[in-house]
Amino acid sequence: MKIVVVGATGTIGKAIVAKLEQEHTVIMASRKGADVAVDMTSPASIQAMYEQVGKIDALVVAAGAAYFGPLTTMTPENNEQSIDGKLKGQMNLVLLGLEYLNDGGSFTLVTGIMMDDPIKQGASAAMVNGGIRSFVKSAAIEMPRGIRINSVSPNVLQESWDKYADFFVGFNPVPAERVAQAFVKSILGGQTGQNYEVY
Amino acid sequence: MKIVVVGATGTIGKAIVAKLEQEHTVIMASRKGADVAVDMTSPASIQAMYEQVGKIDALVVAAGAAYFGPLTTMTPENNEQSIDGKLKGQMNLVLLGLEYLNDGGSFTLVTGIMMDDPIKQGASAAMVNGGIRSFVKSAAIEMPRGIRINSVSPNVLQESWDKYADFFVGFNPVPAERVAQAFVKSILGGQTGQNYEVY
Ligand SMILES: NC(=O)c1ccc[n+]([C@@H]2O[C@H](COP(=O)([O-])OP(=O)(O)OC[C@H]3O[C@@H](n4cnc5c(N)ncnc54)[C@H](OP(=O)(O)O)[C@@H]3O)[C@@H](O)[C@H]2O)c1
Ligand SMILES: NC(=O)c1ccc[n+]([C@@H]2O[C@H](COP(=O)([O-])OP(=O)(O)OC[C@H]3O[C@@H](n4cnc5c(N)ncnc54)[C@H](OP(=O)(O)O)[C@@H]3O)[C@@H](O)[C@H]2O)c1
Repeated sequence: MKIVVVGATGTIGKAIVAKLEQEHTVIMASRKGADVAVDMTSPASIQAMYEQVGKIDALVVAAGAAYFGPLTTMTPENNEQSIDGKLKGQMNLVLLGLEYLNDGGSFTLVTGIMMDDPIKQGASAAMVNGGIRSFVKSAAIEMPRGIRINSVSPNVLQESWDKYADFFVGFNPVPAERVAQAFVKSILGGQTGQNYEVY
Repeated sequence: MKIVVVGATGTIGKAIVAKLEQEHTVIMASRKGADVAVDMTSPASIQAMYEQVGKIDALVVAAGAAYFGPLTTMTPENNEQSIDGKLKGQMNLVLLGLEYLNDGGSFTLVTGIMMDDPIKQGASAAMVNGGIRSFVKSAAIEMPRGIRINSVSPNVLQESWDKYADFFVGFNPVPAERVAQAFVKSILGGQTGQNYEVY
């Protein structure tokens, strides 16, 4: 399979690539320093990425920035960061990517536990995760040519614990390897419309 | 209670107002022809509405446009209509309204069944509904001064059946009165962080 991983140089992305690169052609994508440059906040950049890579079997997203901050001081502009980053970014990778996916190909997006188990300062990010989950469930019934779409919802990662521990008090972090395994299930399995919880 | 209903002149809005107007001061809001003019797609208009109405006990939303159309032809711009309308519109009514809510007041937003029971052409609207549900669940834990927040997820309405029957094949439409009752539970009850399914 020819697989594009957006965010391939990140914590989750690296773990996904490690599981796939032996048996598949993996194209790593991110803003800087990967095989292909893409800024998912820009539809033009997404379009350019697809033109460069051509037909593919799977598009995987392990990227997408969201705003963290107290609800009481959150502005419409703060919230816009989540919408432009993780929400529209992922949806546009699907909308603009459909024609580049081979028959029977797949999209795998990323959500996150805080939509189900909320944390303080996480309302904007939770919104994005819930939006992507519902988009995936609904888009799955309209995918043409046997194309599938799923999302993976990771708990906070052990590898990111130093950075996020203060936000995720009382959570039990999971290894990136276990999250990557859910991505593999989506890419190589047969299911569609699912949100795999790795909690 | 002093209650502002955005979308008060619509199918659901009218049913909500009918249940509340005997015992409460209900201020009807919409773009045209209500007590107060507001365009929820504009943060400046939302701000002006709050300045006009002053302190309130409840903000209710029964409005918000979302895009309907086939996934395979949906563009980023189509999807933007849902984001600017029902998603950001509702979130901005909360973010900009917090300081106008009296202690113990409430926000009640609106989602919709298609996030749980998807229909063709509904992927963008489903995304908005799922995003609002997760925002509500997460924002509830950070609301100051005993302020609550819930959403109501209506099935397709009997009153809208003529308009939407072709989209909602096999659904059992519900009366607007039953949907309005869930709004009343949110406004006058004690719960927070809930999404009331009226399916
Ligand atoms: N880490 C966790 O504990 C955790 C838990 C749940 C969910 N998640 C979600 O999983 C996703 C990835 O998280 P992570 O911790 O692995 O992230 P990370 O380590 O910060 O890596 C982010 C990756 O995305 C790329 N990227 C960033 N902005 C981009 C853009 N605008 N366009 C294209 N690529 C971009 C980065 O490379 P460049 O800088 O070169 O672009 C990098 O490859 C995020 O959506 C996050 O919300 C993470
Ligand atoms: N009807 C259904 O079967 C159904 C089912 C599930 C969910 N819902 C959701 O419930 C909500 C209301 O649906 P409805 O059928 O009652 O709608 P509706 O009958 O079309 O009424 C919409 C109301 O919102 C107002 N409005 C429209 N755009 C606005 C804007 N930009 N800013 C402020 N007010 C605006 C309208 O008045 P003006 O034109 O004067 O602004 C009107 O009062 C929508 O979010 C819809 O998705 C409806």
